[in-house]
Amino acid sequence: MPNWLLPENIADVLPSEARKIEDLRRKMLDTFRLYGYELVMPPLLEYVDSLLAGAGQDTELRTFKVVDQLSGRLLGLRADMTTQVARIDAHLLNRDSVTRLCYAGSVLHTRPSGLHATREPLQIGAEIYGHAGLEADAEIQELALSSVALAGFTDVRLDLCHVGILRALLADDPAARRDEAQLTCFLRAKDAPGLDEFTHNYLPATRQALLALTQLYGGIDVLGRAKEALPALPGITRALAELAALAASAIGRAEVAIDLADLRGYQYESGAMFALYVPGLPNAVARGGRYDHVGEAFGRARPATGFSLDLRELARLLPTAERKHSIRAPWGNAPELREKIADLRKAGEVVIQSMPGHDNVQDEFECDRVLVLENGNWILKNLG
Amino acid sequence: MPNWLLPENIADVLPSEARKIEDLRRKMLDTFRLYGYELVMPPLLEYVDSLLAGAGQDTELRTFKVVDQLSGRLLGLRADMTTQVARIDAHLLNRDSVTRLCYAGSVLHTRPSGLHATREPLQIGAEIYGHAGLEADAEIQELALSSVALAGFTDVRLDLCHVGILRALLADDPAARRDEAQLTCFLRAKDAPGLDEFTHNYLPATRQALLALTQLYGGIDVLGRAKEALPALPGITRALAELAALAASAIGRAEVAIDLADLRGYQYESGAMFALYVPGLPNAVARGGRYDHVGEAFGRARPATGFSLDLRELARLLPTAERKHSIRAPWGNAPELREKIADLRKAGEVVIQSMPGHDNVQDEFECDRVLVLENGNWILKNLG
Repeated sequence: MPNWLLPENIADVLPSEARKIEDLRRKMLDTFRLYGYELVMPPLLEYVDSLLAGAGQDTELRTFKVVDQLSGRLLGLRADMTTQVARIDAHLLNRDSVTRLCYAGSVLHTRPSGLHATREPLQIGAEIYGHAGLEADAEIQELALSSVALAGFTDVRLDLCHVGILRALLADDPAARRDEAQLTCFLRAKDAPGLDEFTHNYLPATRQALLALTQLYGGIDVLGRAKEALPALPGITRALAELAALAASAIGRAEVAIDLADLRGYQYESGAMFALYVPGLPNAVARGGRYDHVGEAFGRARPATGFSLDLRELARLLPTAERKHSIRAPWGNAPELREKIADLRKAGEVVIQSMPGHDNVQDEFECDRVLVLENGNWILKNLG
Repeated sequence: MPNWLLPENIADVLPSEARKIEDLRRKMLDTFRLYGYELVMPPLLEYVDSLLAGAGQDTELRTFKVVDQLSGRLLGLRADMTTQVARIDAHLLNRDSVTRLCYAGSVLHTRPSGLHATREPLQIGAEIYGHAGLEADAEIQELALSSVALAGFTDVRLDLCHVGILRALLADDPAARRDEAQLTCFLRAKDAPGLDEFTHNYLPATRQALLALTQLYGGIDVLGRAKEALPALPGITRALAELAALAASAIGRAEVAIDLADLRGYQYESGAMFALYVPGLPNAVARGGRYDHVGEAFGRARPATGFSLDLRELARLLPTAERKHSIRAPWGNAPELREKIADLRKAGEVVIQSMPGHDNVQDEFECDRVLVLENGNWILKNLG
């Protein structure tokens, strides 16, 4: 086996692709900044006890573990950055006020999430801590829509759902509450027959509502149908009102879809959740939502809502970046030449000096001009 | 032990520090681009057979290893990106022409290189492949000096040395050649008594030259002294001429020092080597040099020269970034307010919307203006 082969679902990013990712990364971080989000950089590895505090079993199975030679304790390589940022909010910044944080960094997965999925996503995201109101959810949703728009997608679908509905149903039925994980699976799969069989011991009202959830997907009208089909519990009424407000705030920016059974995520969500879809990709390009309990594991539960996406996957959907026009210059130590080159670079031009005896081939740059000496002056000439 | 504690020599980067690092990262990558360097992103983990091909024993000991659940093979987390970029040049791009590549990414070390050193440096660097001439070394040296200048350091020292001198001495003396690793250690430590004892079986000329190397450090005049003190072997004459040319090209940009015994590095260097020092840090902030053999392990040895530095360490030396002035705005759905905020952000202003009932505290931003409604118009008012 040749030693330059990479592991499965692990890849180098070559110049033209790397440039797309870098451009998108900067645009998104700049946008987060304009909204007042502060950048943090959590570490690639932590004690597993910290890294997996508050994370679900999925994340635990996806996390690479290594032994720390300094402490003898087990370290994990982050598979998700959300709990890391929650830890920073809870213990390092420890503010009482509203805190907006953003981040961008690689995460690693022991197994790919799909056949062609990378095991090294480049996760970028933003979070608001300290505000329980829907304003925070709306800002995060707006930021997620702006991020996908920055990548040039105009045809975006926003899927909304709400964990509060299932929670409200189960709060009234202790037997059902123990089955939350299985019920979530049945609902995600919209497996009505399975759900029907699994819930035959439940209170009839709970059972009927759970089965109704598998049918409650479609346009915004689903919210009206849900009001009729689901019991008028306070938690459900509140959840439907929140979804209606979030749907309204996205009008004109995305096609809005409601799917009350689509409880995908990291198992720490606690309120409204959303997913963004773009043409050409079956999976969501961005996911977000409320997870007020994520800081609890660090002893400081603060209201929290945020979103994240994989920059690599999003960039892959974009057309290849145009090659940047550049200038070829000869090698030389003459001060006039060096000065001319420095001036061109200061003006933002890419100037590539030829190494004597070699051509230069690039993916990213296209030399369309050359610097030549004519009558004692260095001037630019167009290349055919 | 509380679950929010991080492992030793691992740290979160908080907003004001993260901003410094991000700014510096962009400035450096932009500069590399103006010189025609193309960005690549090698993966965080690879099979150890690839990752450690051509790397020295130091790197092997510093590399975390994990088992790949997909292949059952051993993976390593990169401790250095140079060999990864060489692999990309050798097998993915596989060009015959001169190739300029740059990169920026985290690397991980099992043990810190010093008491306070991080185990997660943020390595940034640039490499030229395919040109054996000194022009490539000169360009890399210039780029390294420019990078440190971008960070605001004006008082830089450039230390030069050359692996070719020791290699030329050992080529003539088979007994000594077997001891290259130990000799390098004695020379790095400038341990003349140890070297004297260790080399008592060597040819007198080799021994005398090795001992002379421990004394050959200081200003540019060292090159003249070296010409007299060392045998006139072709390899030594060439090395001294290369160092003279590289020293000359740095005049006016750095204080140049020569230290012919300072053979630090990654054990794959093959020619001229340099290190940059700035006030306030005893260790070099950047290291570079020629390592023509690094691609050999991947079956394609190309001339190669490059440099790298740790962005985190460099950023730590910089003064705290000034807080960016920003605008506080109320929350609201009124189209006029939303439009005004969007316009301000488009103009590059940071606008932070207050979440009802909360203050907002930031490290990165300082709200010096507030958006208020007066006579039906949203206007900016100065605070304080």
